[in-house]
Amino acid sequence: MSLPEYQKVEVTANIPYPVFLGAQLEALGEYLHSQFQDVEHILIITNPQVAKLYAERLQKGLLVDYRVNFLFVPAGETEKSLERLSQLTTAALRFGADRHTLVIALGGGVIGDLAGFFASVFMRGIRLIQVPTTLLAQVDSSIGGKVAVNHPAGKNILGAFYPPRAVWTDFTTLESLPWEEVENGLAESIKHALIEDSGLFEFFETEEESLKRRDPLIWREMVTRSSTVKVRIVSQDEREQGRRALLNLGHSFGHALETEMNYRGVTHGQGVSIGLVAAAHLANAKGLMTMAEVDRIKRLLNKFGLPTKITEIVETTIKDPQVLLQLMQADKKNQGGRKILILPHGIGRAVISKECTDAEILDAWNQVI
Amino acid sequence: MSLPEYQKVEVTANIPYPVFLGAQLEALGEYLHSQFQDVEHILIITNPQVAKLYAERLQKGLLVDYRVNFLFVPAGETEKSLERLSQLTTAALRFGADRHTLVIALGGGVIGDLAGFFASVFMRGIRLIQVPTTLLAQVDSSIGGKVAVNHPAGKNILGAFYPPRAVWTDFTTLESLPWEEVENGLAESIKHALIEDSGLFEFFETEEESLKRRDPLIWREMVTRSSTVKVRIVSQDEREQGRRALLNLGHSFGHALETEMNYRGVTHGQGVSIGLVAAAHLANAKGLMTMAEVDRIKRLLNKFGLPTKITEIVETTIKDPQVLLQLMQADKKNQGGRKILILPHGIGRAVISKECTDAEILDAWNQVI
Ligand SMILES: NC(=O)c1ccc[n+]([C@@H]2O[C@H](COP(=O)([O-])OP(=O)(O)OC[C@H]3O[C@@H](n4cnc5c(N)ncnc54)[C@H](O)[C@@H]3O)[C@@H](O)[C@H]2O)c1
Ligand SMILES: NC(=O)c1ccc[n+]([C@@H]2O[C@H](COP(=O)([O-])OP(=O)(O)OC[C@H]3O[C@@H](n4cnc5c(N)ncnc54)[C@H](O)[C@@H]3O)[C@@H](O)[C@H]2O)c1
Repeated sequence: MSLPEYQKVEVTANIPYPVFLGAQLEALGEYLHSQFQDVEHILIITNPQVAKLYAERLQKGLLVDYRVNFLFVPAGETEKSLERLSQLTTAALRFGADRHTLVIALGGGVIGDLAGFFASVFMRGIRLIQVPTTLLAQVDSSIGGKVAVNHPAGKNILGAFYPPRAVWTDFTTLESLPWEEVENGLAESIKHALIEDSGLFEFFETEEESLKRRDPLIWREMVTRSSTVKVRIVSQDEREQGRRALLNLGHSFGHALETEMNYRGVTHGQGVSIGLVAAAHLANAKGLMTMAEVDRIKRLLNKFGLPTKITEIVETTIKDPQVLLQLMQADKKNQGGRKILILPHGIGRAVISKECTDAEILDAWNQVI
Repeated sequence: MSLPEYQKVEVTANIPYPVFLGAQLEALGEYLHSQFQDVEHILIITNPQVAKLYAERLQKGLLVDYRVNFLFVPAGETEKSLERLSQLTTAALRFGADRHTLVIALGGGVIGDLAGFFASVFMRGIRLIQVPTTLLAQVDSSIGGKVAVNHPAGKNILGAFYPPRAVWTDFTTLESLPWEEVENGLAESIKHALIEDSGLFEFFETEEESLKRRDPLIWREMVTRSSTVKVRIVSQDEREQGRRALLNLGHSFGHALETEMNYRGVTHGQGVSIGLVAAAHLANAKGLMTMAEVDRIKRLLNKFGLPTKITEIVETTIKDPQVLLQLMQADKKNQGGRKILILPHGIGRAVISKECTDAEILDAWNQVI
């Protein structure tokens, strides 16, 4: 069975760029050649695991026309740091990188964020192509131009809005992704469905088995629909001054949980999953969602192995939701003391709310503890 | 004698912003209040020397409406570093900075570049006001949105184009500036005159005495005209894809010299001054400038204590211009091996040239050795 040709979706931001869904790694070179006449030098920033699997396929299309160098970054969230940025800079200069060098970020969200931030600041900004290889990166982090590194004082504290020149998404790279990593992406995809695609939500419900089997055509449809939600939202609001905030659905709760657990024993997907359930309960309390809908969300998450309660993932229960509430206070999306929360409004719609009281938020936490 | 009210010049870049020439430190608070309704918290980034002189005047207008914190950075070029950026981040978060915090860069170009880069990346960008207090910062570095830090491998290697919300220039701060620092700014101002304001060049020639005496009205005119050249050029080409490159007149030579001397024993102004002379000789060789014009440039620089030959500043002569030529190779403005040089075309005009041979460049170096 031959798969259809790739699909091109446009992010219509301040500086527009195309997202190629279902493109092939081997064909990127040809695309670059047709788009950028003045590129001679390419830096591929990636990690050793991803390189082992995909560097050869990507390189194949590049070597004819370009001088190509690899910059390797070990795997792991801790690599998103100023120290690593500094090392990338040293290495890039050693390879003769200049303002006309083009950066390819080949990997998951960590590589995308780090290489993207590097590209945004190196000599005040050089060209960037995102080549996402995790589900999370394909449906979420490669789209929208947010790039960042972490700081001891917080995640993604230093960064920029730096649109790539293109996002080059090859679905076949997902075949090698461990299921735990798949889950991180599924949590975001289900979030996208909740925010504005009830059809996608139903698709998840009916195609459970094929998705778990990683049926290529079903995956293609899911990733395409989920990416498209992200493309649509960031096109409407690149700089997160309005609608883009909806993408934080589940994340204020999730981040608080991840922080409390020091990012150990809970994956990002698990945090988001529990966060989605907490937000759903809060929405129910606010009259935005029926209990039946809350249950439908929980059922779907559970089907894909995602938790709906903290006890499902950790033995030592967090007994006092007060500390989680405190942690939400520190969220960088807050505005002068008021908590800003995203709530689902039925399935397939979400709203920004500044009206939730601390008591209501505590109640929501209690539903997932 | 009362000075005229301030003058407002607009940088008409992608994101336009006003430059207030001759504004008063005390009045900034009122201006911010009229412009930014959602600012509650202000971070003033400055150094202890500048703070001692001007913090009180600036603060006076701010304390009524805002929560104000100071972040102090020791003086010196080495402070433009990723390490300092990281420390500023820690301190800012400790003071409760968030996305709505506004940064004021109070100081010379070092503070402007560092605080500007901090503002450009902190939580993906927060608002920035430049309050330049050196001549160089007033006529040059505060205008145009370039911000950066240095890296062990080179100056200004990591940075961004990040336009401030406004530039607030109080001429009276220049009264306390040591003459050596004045010279750095004069070199850039004379460069501006050479690039596109022959009238300003003549003004320098005729007002030498009043400028040296720092006559307020004459200074006001000089700083205003020189700043306006910069405003005009960056308005035409914010991202340095064309005309803005003209501002590098004298800098390719100057940087090579500064690098060769390890930034010791030569100030930036001296480097630029010698660079301007070298570029003038090269222009003469190319038939773009008469020898009389070259001499006129030299005479003007000398009048203000700026050197026109390397021997004027260092005892150990650099005997082999070849090493300086090599250093120009590394300039980040070069394009794939070809040296791009800015040459004066008469006085009051400049051109971008890719046609200079290494032999011609060596000849130019020999004229200033
Ligand atoms: N910029 C944004 O808008 C945005 C949005 C969401 C998340 N993020 C960021 O994304 C990061 C998380 O990204 P992630 O979930 O992709 O994690 P990740 O980048 O750490 O990748 C997870 C693991 O999968 C491996 N891997 C990658 N591709 C593979 C493949 N095709 N086959 C086998 N293994 C593969 C990697 O080596 C890594 O160990 C976080 O730092 C988060 O802050 C950014
Ligand atoms: N962003 C740009 O477009 C641009 C352009 C040119 C230069 N620069 C950068 O600017 C920097 C140089 O700036 P600079 O020449 O202003 O040097 P600087 O910032 O180091 O200031 C020079 C000294 O003057 C002192 N000072 C500042 N204001 C004073 C005042 N009013 N009275 C008394 N002392 C005062 C400072 O404490 C400092 O010691 C370099 O890092 C250079 O890379 C940037």
